[in-house]
Amino acid sequence: MISTLKVPTEIQSKIGLVEKRMLSQTDGYHPDLKAALEVLLSSGGKRIRPLIILLIGELLSGDESKLLNLATAIELLHTATLVHDDLIDGSLLRRGVPTLNSQWSPAATVLTGDFLFACAATLAAQTDHLEVIKLFSKTLTVIVNGEINQLFTSHCNTSKEDYFKRIYAKTASLFETSARSAALLSPATKTQIDVLTKFGYSLGMAFQVIDDVLDYVGDESKVGKPVGGDLRQGLITLPMLYYMEMHPDDPAVADLVIHKCVKDESEISRLVVTIKESRAIEKALTQARAFAEEARRCLDTFADSAAKEALLGLTDYIVDRNL
Amino acid sequence: MISTLKVPTEIQSKIGLVEKRMLSQTDGYHPDLKAALEVLLSSGGKRIRPLIILLIGELLSGDESKLLNLATAIELLHTATLVHDDLIDGSLLRRGVPTLNSQWSPAATVLTGDFLFACAATLAAQTDHLEVIKLFSKTLTVIVNGEINQLFTSHCNTSKEDYFKRIYAKTASLFETSARSAALLSPATKTQIDVLTKFGYSLGMAFQVIDDVLDYVGDESKVGKPVGGDLRQGLITLPMLYYMEMHPDDPAVADLVIHKCVKDESEISRLVVTIKESRAIEKALTQARAFAEEARRCLDTFADSAAKEALLGLTDYIVDRNL
Repeated sequence: MISTLKVPTEIQSKIGLVEKRMLSQTDGYHPDLKAALEVLLSSGGKRIRPLIILLIGELLSGDESKLLNLATAIELLHTATLVHDDLIDGSLLRRGVPTLNSQWSPAATVLTGDFLFACAATLAAQTDHLEVIKLFSKTLTVIVNGEINQLFTSHCNTSKEDYFKRIYAKTASLFETSARSAALLSPATKTQIDVLTKFGYSLGMAFQVIDDVLDYVGDESKVGKPVGGDLRQGLITLPMLYYMEMHPDDPAVADLVIHKCVKDESEISRLVVTIKESRAIEKALTQARAFAEEARRCLDTFADSAAKEALLGLTDYIVDRNL
Repeated sequence: MISTLKVPTEIQSKIGLVEKRMLSQTDGYHPDLKAALEVLLSSGGKRIRPLIILLIGELLSGDESKLLNLATAIELLHTATLVHDDLIDGSLLRRGVPTLNSQWSPAATVLTGDFLFACAATLAAQTDHLEVIKLFSKTLTVIVNGEINQLFTSHCNTSKEDYFKRIYAKTASLFETSARSAALLSPATKTQIDVLTKFGYSLGMAFQVIDDVLDYVGDESKVGKPVGGDLRQGLITLPMLYYMEMHPDDPAVADLVIHKCVKDESEISRLVVTIKESRAIEKALTQARAFAEEARRCLDTFADSAAKEALLGLTDYIVDRNL
């Protein structure tokens, strides 16, 4: 079981550059913005999206300066959506660190998110690549629309098709855009661009399924939030969907299908424990591994290299982290 | 005194197209987004930024389809900032129409604003003009940073220099970008692009000074909000700045300079009436007219045409509206 992420030293130092560049976007603006971004960066995060970009850039010998711009833009966009998400959910902690939302007014939180969006768009434009710029803004539309669907559509949606659409919007779309944009900014054939797009998609789907599994089985101290949070918020993810298929007779499942929610708080707690100990977890993991395998296969046609090795390592890490 | 805006029929019908295109951005996304945008569009607004763009396009015989994209992008960006502003201020009415914020949850309001930003960025990218795209995202940064400064910096700032910086960020920056981008998308010399940039800047400065005067002297039923709102929020605008220069002995002025706020609510009400009847209003109007005159002069080198006539008419309208 692999749970640490091995990143080539030169890529690790480029990730450092991405973080520096993220911070430097606030130069010349209100000093509290830099302070806020420092807090946001200090909460860690593996910078998986920048890693995908820089490793694909390495794989294809792409333009380093444009790839750094892209990686910074994508991570700023991701950070901006997290800032607004924490406000929307009223979350007080993320990865165990107090959210901006818990310390600042809603006004300051909204504007900080907006500022990060604006910086992200500015950096994306600096790639000077129209298709990359268009992909970037289109992906923001997909992500935000996904959140709007989640907010406006009745909770406790029990369709697997909807689940996969939801995690595409939430996570896989930005992974896909990261990979495709990195390929577009590098010397690559159309086939290579398409196969790397699929790599990003599959990796993103695997990532989110694992995230949803960790919401049931994760170590609270590592995940940084209480177990079973999704179900408590009325969010039906893959482990619960499999559990429903396997146990249609569980009264909580019937409750969910009929009333579109589990009404009793103690029933939810029982359900979280039951799911955690059921075969639903293994089935969800199998699905995540299938996505990861699809991602791995996308790299088949590339010659062996340190970058390819690291992309395969990243794929392993994504399915094995914290399990 | 001119208070109605005369727009050539063909430009008026293009404004109709801009509004249709704004609405069509929500096609294929959650239906409540279209409903929200319909409410936002129904609150009226003169679409001054699209007018600037379409008239400059007409003046220079620019590419119609790209100019329509740009006009839609800019108005969507403007609408997105209004949606987040209303949330930040807790405003319940805008132009007499209930704000989204008054009817929806903060979560839905934040996400609707984000969605409009994303659509705006997508349309801006469709101009296929890198300088326009870069200008667009940079301007969003300027606008948001201006709001952050207003939120984070102690209120009751009594410097005229800061006031002009503030209204540049708040209003003139987007007018300037509208004008410059329209010129960039049209066949124009560098000199023409620069002079039209200055036109947009000056018109925007005039517009905001007049807005700040109307906050004191406007007809509440037309302005759609109570008189004196700025001062009540601790926002020192040009009429108050002139009043302070002319009446340093007024106790409320001393209070403001020393304590950075007027503490007594009844003092604020007295001050609003006193300023309204003072020569400060005339002085602020003189400043607005000077900006408008600067804007008018920028059009001097262009041959007479219906578009030039309409741009001059727009400038007149901006300083004379509702006065």
